[in-house]
Amino acid sequence: MASDSAIDKILAGKYPAKKHADNVARYIRDAHPEIVDGLIYLESTKSALLEDNDSEAPFRQRRYFYYLSGCDLPDSYLTYSLGTSTLTLYIPPINPADVLWSGLPLSVEEARAKYDVDTVALSSPNLHADLSAFAAKSSPSGPIFAITGQVSDDIPHVVQGSLHTKILKKAIEDCRAIKDDYEVALIRKANLITALAHHKAMATVKKAGNERELEAVFTERCIANGAPKQAYHGIYGSGRAAATLHYVHNNQPLKGKLNLLLDAGAEYKNYASDVTRTFPISGTFSKESREIYELVLVMQKATMAESKAGTSWDHVHTVAHKVAIEGLLKLGILKGGTPEEIISARTSCAFLPHGLGHLLGMDTHDSGGNPNYKDEDPMFRYLRKRGVLRVGEVITVEPGLYFCEFIIRPYLEDPKHSKYIDKDVLDKYWDVGGVRIEDNILITENGYENLTTTAKEVEDMYKLING
Amino acid sequence: MASDSAIDKILAGKYPAKKHADNVARYIRDAHPEIVDGLIYLESTKSALLEDNDSEAPFRQRRYFYYLSGCDLPDSYLTYSLGTSTLTLYIPPINPADVLWSGLPLSVEEARAKYDVDTVALSSPNLHADLSAFAAKSSPSGPIFAITGQVSDDIPHVVQGSLHTKILKKAIEDCRAIKDDYEVALIRKANLITALAHHKAMATVKKAGNERELEAVFTERCIANGAPKQAYHGIYGSGRAAATLHYVHNNQPLKGKLNLLLDAGAEYKNYASDVTRTFPISGTFSKESREIYELVLVMQKATMAESKAGTSWDHVHTVAHKVAIEGLLKLGILKGGTPEEIISARTSCAFLPHGLGHLLGMDTHDSGGNPNYKDEDPMFRYLRKRGVLRVGEVITVEPGLYFCEFIIRPYLEDPKHSKYIDKDVLDKYWDVGGVRIEDNILITENGYENLTTTAKEVEDMYKLING
Repeated sequence: MASDSAIDKILAGKYPAKKHADNVARYIRDAHPEIVDGLIYLESTKSALLEDNDSEAPFRQRRYFYYLSGCDLPDSYLTYSLGTSTLTLYIPPINPADVLWSGLPLSVEEARAKYDVDTVALSSPNLHADLSAFAAKSSPSGPIFAITGQVSDDIPHVVQGSLHTKILKKAIEDCRAIKDDYEVALIRKANLITALAHHKAMATVKKAGNERELEAVFTERCIANGAPKQAYHGIYGSGRAAATLHYVHNNQPLKGKLNLLLDAGAEYKNYASDVTRTFPISGTFSKESREIYELVLVMQKATMAESKAGTSWDHVHTVAHKVAIEGLLKLGILKGGTPEEIISARTSCAFLPHGLGHLLGMDTHDSGGNPNYKDEDPMFRYLRKRGVLRVGEVITVEPGLYFCEFIIRPYLEDPKHSKYIDKDVLDKYWDVGGVRIEDNILITENGYENLTTTAKEVEDMYKLING
Repeated sequence: MASDSAIDKILAGKYPAKKHADNVARYIRDAHPEIVDGLIYLESTKSALLEDNDSEAPFRQRRYFYYLSGCDLPDSYLTYSLGTSTLTLYIPPINPADVLWSGLPLSVEEARAKYDVDTVALSSPNLHADLSAFAAKSSPSGPIFAITGQVSDDIPHVVQGSLHTKILKKAIEDCRAIKDDYEVALIRKANLITALAHHKAMATVKKAGNERELEAVFTERCIANGAPKQAYHGIYGSGRAAATLHYVHNNQPLKGKLNLLLDAGAEYKNYASDVTRTFPISGTFSKESREIYELVLVMQKATMAESKAGTSWDHVHTVAHKVAIEGLLKLGILKGGTPEEIISARTSCAFLPHGLGHLLGMDTHDSGGNPNYKDEDPMFRYLRKRGVLRVGEVITVEPGLYFCEFIIRPYLEDPKHSKYIDKDVLDKYWDVGGVRIEDNILITENGYENLTTTAKEVEDMYKLING
């Protein structure tokens, strides 16, 4: 595990925008030998107001733009010349009316010092002139690469005619799948903050009365530690609500319920963490809860042990189902078949309906995973990463077992599955709700490195909960 | 002051959607005698994903729709028939693919019990048929009232042809300006939560190292108490940052700075609170800080005392400037003129550049205030409420005095103003940053009722800060 100071040392440097731009250009050239020159053109998120309102809408930087700039400003633009390898950032000019309210914006000199780019210019008056000049000498083998729907309407006509929108988006998405040290440090940092937040939630759960109090302390720890945004809408599901995979209410009382499933992660400088823990509200798991928790933990350790470069993620996901089936047979929830028969029937999807994990980066479900949501096999339909693992991928490992009436009922009504499920034994587990344990790992040549530092061993969680 | 239990008793009832719809219909008939019938048609916010992402975008209900429905669901619709006074809510049908992940949505029966509407139906298949049936018998004196830009593209052609988009928006906006008891209770509730959060920030400031720690505890108290959303992007400005009116960074260290300006408020069930406090980071105001704080407090008390139905808000705003000028003359920051001369010169706008307050409701800057941002008089240009105060309006009273270089410098360079400013005395005040004190008041027949319960007397704040 990298130390905090090692992480901070990496992050004291600049976000490696230039290297990302070089990589994307190389990807384009490699994938499209007919391309000999060209200009990458990307736009940041534009500032906007809430509908019917004079307040600014929540700002989320466009990931394509950020990847090649490291710049979190709205109303900005970048170009990268394949011919000269020059990365240029265009930032907004001073708007005198804004200075009264907001002070001076970032200057060209400040931006030059802050970002890993070759040149910084003001968008007005430079951007359109520069783009037009390039467009004048562009060609089919040296076009302006852009992303459909992310080109301003006011771009000069001559530029519109030179746009090539078939390559750039996928090029960036595929490059993004492999993280460099700086990106890994950002995800580590997000995970360190997330661990503080999860641990605080554990330390709070015994005295909390409502799910929202846990969301409150989790959010507090993130903001206080430099992560004002959550990577995604957190799930704070108590009791049977933990079985609702996309539970969003986070406002129910905890009294009389067994466990809390907490799936939340800090975003740090546009990079996500994504961590789930499930723990007993009382401070001690019930017999059934502990059985399921320990089974999911075995599933997680077994699947992590399989995770390394060159291994198919389908295979790792299958391991999760195999371990689950063995464990559920031992508990008596499954019965009447061999593990092979049960996995062939896909009956374990009743308890583990989602994929084992997904790539993680600037998006929580990061680009480059090549999922196939139309897969006819229900065991793989929701798997967000297909194909082999590669060095530098960061992926979540998040096995779970759920007792969700909506999901399990059709299995109980289908003789193909019901013969493998012991309804009487199952009935003892509904109040467990659901258990998920989710960490974020970096794929290496020979295995993986776990970037998540949140406690998950039962005794470690007990210590945090019971003080 | 209404007790907590009195507020909760009001809020245990339904949001008065039907009364709001009746009021809007009456407004339309009164303002447009040619209208004899018609159908109000409103759409809720549609569910949407973040750009380039599979997560849901932050949801904010359309205020026009909420006002006539009290319904916080996405992808919903409502109609109100002027002829039969029938309010109908159309909610989304079950999407089987969603049930797997999210459980069952609200049913028609549950919606009927929950909302103050006459009828609830599923949007599909009922909405288009119902609208088409109405459109078939519509006329210029009985059209379908809608809001431009808030009508789905897939609405039947016959309905498109019957739309009247000139009246409804302004009708709802004007009705919204006057709050009923239920809405006042919502704003009171938001203010009660906001007070818990402000008081926690005060109790934290001495041990905090960074502005973000105060945003963290403020947010924590709101979420834990049932207000997961902030009414607006809060300002946590320390030292001279307090003079940046729209300061957004909230990430600077507190060390060595005098005061914190904290402008933040909880949103409760779509209703805003908007409260600013300024307090000493050390627990004790410096001499200059206390002088400015007490002057702003006098400005606030003087302007509140003027606030009652029938009084012009321009007048109340002018009182703020008059009190400020008297106080700044006493402190020696202003000099060389009578209060009348200085207010005529508009020199006090150097220190109080914004308006005294704005209507407050579902929007933080609520509708119905009739501002004139093109007013050539700088003293009134940013005043968001013009005309007389009316019973039932909720308005912020937020005088402030700021020592903002960007704002004051042009005044110092203009002999028309500089003759009234003592630069040497002023120089002692830059580190005060800015002081604003903001409460939310309900206008009554003979005065006002203060809905804000956050401490603001110096000694009360000292107690909270120093424990």
